[in-house]
Amino acid sequence: MIKANDPALKSWVEVPENSDFPIQNLPFGIFKTDYMEAGAGVAIGEHVLDLTYLHENGFLDGLSLPAGVFNQRWLNDFIGLGKKVTSRVRERISELLRHDHDELRDNKPARELALIPMDEAEMLMPVKVPNYTDFYSSIEHATNVGTMFRDPKNALLPNWRHIPVGYHGRASSIVPSGVSIKRPNGQTKPPEAERPSFGPSGRLDFELEMAFITCMENGLGNAIPTHKAEDHIFGFVLFNDWSARDIQVWEYVPLGPFLAKNFASSISPWIVTMDALEPFRTSGPEQVPEVLPYLQYKGDKNFDIHLQVYLQPEGGEENLICNSNFKYMYWNVNQQLAHHTVNGCNVQVGDMYASGTISGPAPDSYGSMLELAWKGTKPLKLSNGEERKFVQDGDTVIMRGFGMKGNVRIGFGEVKTKVLPADQAQVTG
Amino acid sequence: MIKANDPALKSWVEVPENSDFPIQNLPFGIFKTDYMEAGAGVAIGEHVLDLTYLHENGFLDGLSLPAGVFNQRWLNDFIGLGKKVTSRVRERISELLRHDHDELRDNKPARELALIPMDEAEMLMPVKVPNYTDFYSSIEHATNVGTMFRDPKNALLPNWRHIPVGYHGRASSIVPSGVSIKRPNGQTKPPEAERPSFGPSGRLDFELEMAFITCMENGLGNAIPTHKAEDHIFGFVLFNDWSARDIQVWEYVPLGPFLAKNFASSISPWIVTMDALEPFRTSGPEQVPEVLPYLQYKGDKNFDIHLQVYLQPEGGEENLICNSNFKYMYWNVNQQLAHHTVNGCNVQVGDMYASGTISGPAPDSYGSMLELAWKGTKPLKLSNGEERKFVQDGDTVIMRGFGMKGNVRIGFGEVKTKVLPADQAQVTG
Repeated sequence: MIKANDPALKSWVEVPENSDFPIQNLPFGIFKTDYMEAGAGVAIGEHVLDLTYLHENGFLDGLSLPAGVFNQRWLNDFIGLGKKVTSRVRERISELLRHDHDELRDNKPARELALIPMDEAEMLMPVKVPNYTDFYSSIEHATNVGTMFRDPKNALLPNWRHIPVGYHGRASSIVPSGVSIKRPNGQTKPPEAERPSFGPSGRLDFELEMAFITCMENGLGNAIPTHKAEDHIFGFVLFNDWSARDIQVWEYVPLGPFLAKNFASSISPWIVTMDALEPFRTSGPEQVPEVLPYLQYKGDKNFDIHLQVYLQPEGGEENLICNSNFKYMYWNVNQQLAHHTVNGCNVQVGDMYASGTISGPAPDSYGSMLELAWKGTKPLKLSNGEERKFVQDGDTVIMRGFGMKGNVRIGFGEVKTKVLPADQAQVTG
Repeated sequence: MIKANDPALKSWVEVPENSDFPIQNLPFGIFKTDYMEAGAGVAIGEHVLDLTYLHENGFLDGLSLPAGVFNQRWLNDFIGLGKKVTSRVRERISELLRHDHDELRDNKPARELALIPMDEAEMLMPVKVPNYTDFYSSIEHATNVGTMFRDPKNALLPNWRHIPVGYHGRASSIVPSGVSIKRPNGQTKPPEAERPSFGPSGRLDFELEMAFITCMENGLGNAIPTHKAEDHIFGFVLFNDWSARDIQVWEYVPLGPFLAKNFASSISPWIVTMDALEPFRTSGPEQVPEVLPYLQYKGDKNFDIHLQVYLQPEGGEENLICNSNFKYMYWNVNQQLAHHTVNGCNVQVGDMYASGTISGPAPDSYGSMLELAWKGTKPLKLSNGEERKFVQDGDTVIMRGFGMKGNVRIGFGEVKTKVLPADQAQVTG
């Protein structure tokens, strides 16, 4: 058991009940304030702990940290130190924040400089993302999509139970929570139309996903076996894989989704470490037929993380529209990384690997509007009386996630994104 | 007309007849030697001109260049200065190398330090690639593939003449000429097999492509219209999009090519500037039906660049197996970039955008083994008596390209890659 995960630990920093960020979590992120440049921090209750300050003032001595490793725009250099180092840093931060540890607690000037109220901090992208891959690993999601668009009797394609299917996405357009996105313009062609036309997407959707972030390279040509995959995974974020369904259906044959996805993806800004998620390990679904040896694994590789999606219309209140769980994944992250690298493909520090839409078995656990409103045939009713088949301009989509064990809640915070109208100038000329 | 392109120009540096690198070319790259760290250079004849040396010794004064811009592992910071600056640098280099300009010519110590024989220089990746996209823009290639795998009477998919189809590829595994690649292991399933199996790809192929490299951001949410696309394009390289056909056919539905491609792509190391290619502009094929307004363009946007592929078996000689031309592209680079960004997708400095396989109308102009040997039904005969349906271990694939106008030849050098056997350890355990 990792000491920092001890459910009995309390912090001298006040942590409200139901906070996502108790002392057992300690996720890493990049923040800035009106008077401070971007740097690394750790979330504790309603505060950000300034790692640059702690490091520069000797609180992190003896951990073999290079000078300036936290005083940066990205966490890549820090997480690239490897999990032995980063796990020790998390343990040391846990120690500094423990209710019975006086080193920082009783040093009032240091404490006041190191702890910044969250409402004064703006969270930025935590890593520079060299490569982004999106998997398609929820069997419920793949089955729903296959049922709607292909054959309900053969909803899963022949390769689905043999391969953790995935594709490369666009790294440049991944943005953090709080950054609004524009509805994309694009080319679409309804089946009844003779020719395609151009304009704002009429079927803008979210996809509820989680993504893992890598912290160690394998080097081109070297596969990562399932039993070593976790050495390469630093932690997780919530991931909203924005999708324009009408653009997607026209463009995706034969080379996959492209402009339907690459206009934006949104993430929660705190990276919850794999260490903090240890208590939430659980077994995954049985895989039938048996997978090839390179995809076999031992142990509990799924995670019991409750996932929720809220839709908030302009001027209205939040509507809970989806209750899912990361544990539903058919293919786990160890299998995803082993598959991705079995041909020698090289992983880099800061890469993001998203799960694909996480749908559960119940209709209210489906992770996209496409599935929740079943291709527009079952519109969602909102508390203000409006209906939704897809996401409208002015809507805000909020995803939240947390693991719960006893009284300890390890949360991800949220990814909250408002949808702005499409750029009209592009349409007209 | 750009002055540096004047066909009458001669250099005081000796340039052999048929060299790819006369004074009218001046491509940029990153090189190192046994006694020098990586830095930027320009090719001239059989020499590399050391830009770090020129800059540090005042030969590039007055061009608004930041200190240290050439003394770097990548060209990203230099090309990110924008084409107004980089074009002026090329003009100044042209001046310094002109036969009638004595500044460097008659300064023997400087000249000897600035000019490094190519055989002493190792060429590295010229840019750090934040994002890589591969298009599918040759109508002959798309028709050949559709004919082989789908319906010869409806070889092109319905979207093909409306959209410059593309997909995101893997940036991390792009390597320069000279770096050998391993045959990838992967999962395959021949149609007659009941279950998939794992092992080295049996259908390793090359794809003859060109790629453009971007030098200016648009910013998330902002489209780049066709008439502004060239402001964002610094230059071109040859691109070998290695493909494992047996892995591809099993994995690619419904999300596109993934492990069949991401084990490696190989490029030529010299970036030939768009400026140097001005004399080779030519019109593209007529597009029928008319494309949507956002894809329309004016002027000559194709380039007449001869492209060749050679296959050299282990211990044998080079066999010319393909003669194609970049001018065959149905969709031009302006259209590709306008399409890619019409939804607001953001371009970054150093991005690579590959053309897709460039096949011409004649069977000996097809840009892949798949097409040249027509799915294995027409094996290629090599000069040593061997046959090839796909690429074998020990084979070296070499791609070369050049434009020719009068006596002026603007060449790309080559991308030359040896194929090593697959990693057996991965297969057995």
